[in-house]
Amino acid sequence: MTNSNMYEDDSSLLEQGDPLIDGRAFRRCLGQYPTGVSIITAQQGDKRVGMAVNSFAAVSLDPALVLWSIRCESASAATFIEASHFAISVLAADQVEVSQLFGSGHEDRFKLVQWLPDAAGAPLIKGAIAHLQCRLAKVYEGGDHWILVGQVEHYARFAGEPLVFSQGQYAVTQNHPQVAVGVQKGATSKPTLEDPLFTSLLTSTSQHMSRLFQAHRQALGVTMATSRVLSHLAQGAATIDSLEHDSLLGRGAIEDALNELKNQGFVQLNSGDYSLTESGLQKRQALTARAKEFTAEQLAGVSDADIAAASRVLQKLLGH
Amino acid sequence: MTNSNMYEDDSSLLEQGDPLIDGRAFRRCLGQYPTGVSIITAQQGDKRVGMAVNSFAAVSLDPALVLWSIRCESASAATFIEASHFAISVLAADQVEVSQLFGSGHEDRFKLVQWLPDAAGAPLIKGAIAHLQCRLAKVYEGGDHWILVGQVEHYARFAGEPLVFSQGQYAVTQNHPQVAVGVQKGATSKPTLEDPLFTSLLTSTSQHMSRLFQAHRQALGVTMATSRVLSHLAQGAATIDSLEHDSLLGRGAIEDALNELKNQGFVQLNSGDYSLTESGLQKRQALTARAKEFTAEQLAGVSDADIAAASRVLQKLLGH
Repeated sequence: MTNSNMYEDDSSLLEQGDPLIDGRAFRRCLGQYPTGVSIITAQQGDKRVGMAVNSFAAVSLDPALVLWSIRCESASAATFIEASHFAISVLAADQVEVSQLFGSGHEDRFKLVQWLPDAAGAPLIKGAIAHLQCRLAKVYEGGDHWILVGQVEHYARFAGEPLVFSQGQYAVTQNHPQVAVGVQKGATSKPTLEDPLFTSLLTSTSQHMSRLFQAHRQALGVTMATSRVLSHLAQGAATIDSLEHDSLLGRGAIEDALNELKNQGFVQLNSGDYSLTESGLQKRQALTARAKEFTAEQLAGVSDADIAAASRVLQKLLGH
Repeated sequence: MTNSNMYEDDSSLLEQGDPLIDGRAFRRCLGQYPTGVSIITAQQGDKRVGMAVNSFAAVSLDPALVLWSIRCESASAATFIEASHFAISVLAADQVEVSQLFGSGHEDRFKLVQWLPDAAGAPLIKGAIAHLQCRLAKVYEGGDHWILVGQVEHYARFAGEPLVFSQGQYAVTQNHPQVAVGVQKGATSKPTLEDPLFTSLLTSTSQHMSRLFQAHRQALGVTMATSRVLSHLAQGAATIDSLEHDSLLGRGAIEDALNELKNQGFVQLNSGDYSLTESGLQKRQALTARAKEFTAEQLAGVSDADIAAASRVLQKLLGH
C-alpha cells in the first residue's frame, strides 16, 4: 500500500519502513516525539506498584480525563487494573534518578524516594511539578498494552521545570530561539525581563554551537548516543545498567548504540561487561582529536587573552 | 475525599483543587507535562482535515499502535472518524509557524505549508522529524473528546530536533545539565565529542542564568508569560491573535496572562486591541530597570574589558 520511494529526494531521511519488520527502528521513530516523564503508582490492599511512564496524555477537560498505557505483560498490570485509583507525578528536571529508579523497577524504589500518600493511599512523588489523583474510569484494549483512562479528582501544580525524554535521552527545555530573535528585533541592546543583556547572547551561542557540533558528529558517522557510550567506556568497562545510569540515555538508545559499536568492532562484551576494543580506543582518540580541531576552528582568529577573559566571565556568571 | 491540607508544608505549591471547579487551573497543571507537537491530517473524499495535536502517545509495538484525542465538537471530528486512515507528522524545532497555522485552523493551511500525500492521500508535512501513516483501528469514548487509535502501516524518521510545547509555551530541548557534569567528572579539561571545550561552559552558564533569572522574575511576582506579554505590548497595542503569533506562547497561557494583567490594571482592552495602561508602562519600565540591575549584579567585579572580550568570543562563535 505504501510507497517507499516517496522520500527519494529527501536527504534528511534516516530510516523508514513497516513497524512490524523492524520494531527497534519503529521505536526510534516514536522517540522523535518528545514527552515528559511521569511516575504512576497505585495501592491495592498491601500491594504497592509504581512505574516510570511516558505514554501519559491529557484527554478531556469536562469530565477531567487523562490516559496512559501499560504493557499487558507487566507484573504491575493486574494491580493497576484492580485498584480503584492511581496517582500521577510529573517529574521535574532534577529527578532523573527517580525516573531511572522507577524505570528499572528497583525493589526499594519506594524507600529511596520521598513520597506522600494520596487520598486513596497511592504514592505521590515529592519534588514533582504536578500531581494528579485519579479514579480509574476505563480500561481499553491497545494491542500489547492496556490503555488506562483516569478521572482526575484532584490536581496540584508546583514551581519548577519539567524533565523531558526525547530521541532516546533525558533532556531539559530551553526557550525557543525565536523568542530571543523576536525580543531583539524590538530592542537590540536593551536588557529585557525575558532576556537580560548577555544572557540572550549566551543562549544563542550555546544553541548554535550544539547544532554545529551535532552536524559535525553526523558527518563523522557518530550519533549522540554512540559518542556518549564511547566516552563512558573510555573511562573503563561498564555494565549496561551502569551505562544507563551514567549516560542519561534510555535503555533502547543504549542497546542500539552498543549493537552498532559491536558491529563496527569498537566494543566487546566480556561476562556482562562492555569495554572498548583496541580499535574502539583508537576511534575514540580520533574523535577526541577531531573535537579539539573543531573547537579550534570555531575559535580561529580569537586571541588567547580574549578566550581567557571569556572563560573568566562565564565562570563568574556560574558563581565560581 | 481528597485532603487539600496535604501540601501545607510545601512552599513550591502554586495551586491545587478539583478540576471541575477551575478548568483553567487544571489546564495549567496538565501543561506541566511537556509534549511534542504533531500535525494530524486525513483525506476523505474531497474533504481534507488537519490540526495541531499534543495529545499524541505511543501505545503498542506489536501490533504497532498510537493514539490521540480530538474534541467531539471539533468541525473535523466527523471526517477523522469516517476516514479509513490518518497521517501524523511530528514537527521539528523550526516549525512553530506550521504549528500556529494548524492550531488556528487557518483556511489556507494546506496551501501555506509544503506536504506530500501518504498512501491514503492524507497530507504529511515536509520538514517534520517523523511521519506515521496510520489506519484508524479504534475510536474510544474519552469524555468531551474521542480517543482515536491508529495502526501504523509505515513510519519514517528524519534528522532534526523536535519542537516542544511545555508550560504554555513553545520550547526546544537541550542536553540535560547532568550530562556535562558526568563528562566533566571524568575529564575536566579535555574536550570530548559530546562536549567540546568551552561549549560545556557555555551551556552550563546559559542554563544557570536562565534558572537564576526565573527565580528573580518569580520574586517580582511576574511569570514568563506575563513578562512576555508586557514586552510585546510595550512595543504597541496588539490583538490576541498577533500576541499568539509573536510571543511563542499558547492561547491558554496568553489568555491567563492578559486576565491577570487586566486585573492588576496594567492592560486594557479597546475594540479588540490590548494595550498597556499608564501603570502598565510604569510596571514594564520598573521591570526593565530591575533586569538591568540583575545583570549588573551578576557581572559585579568583572572588568568592562573582560565583558567586551567575552562578547567578542561569543559573537565569533555565533559566526558574526
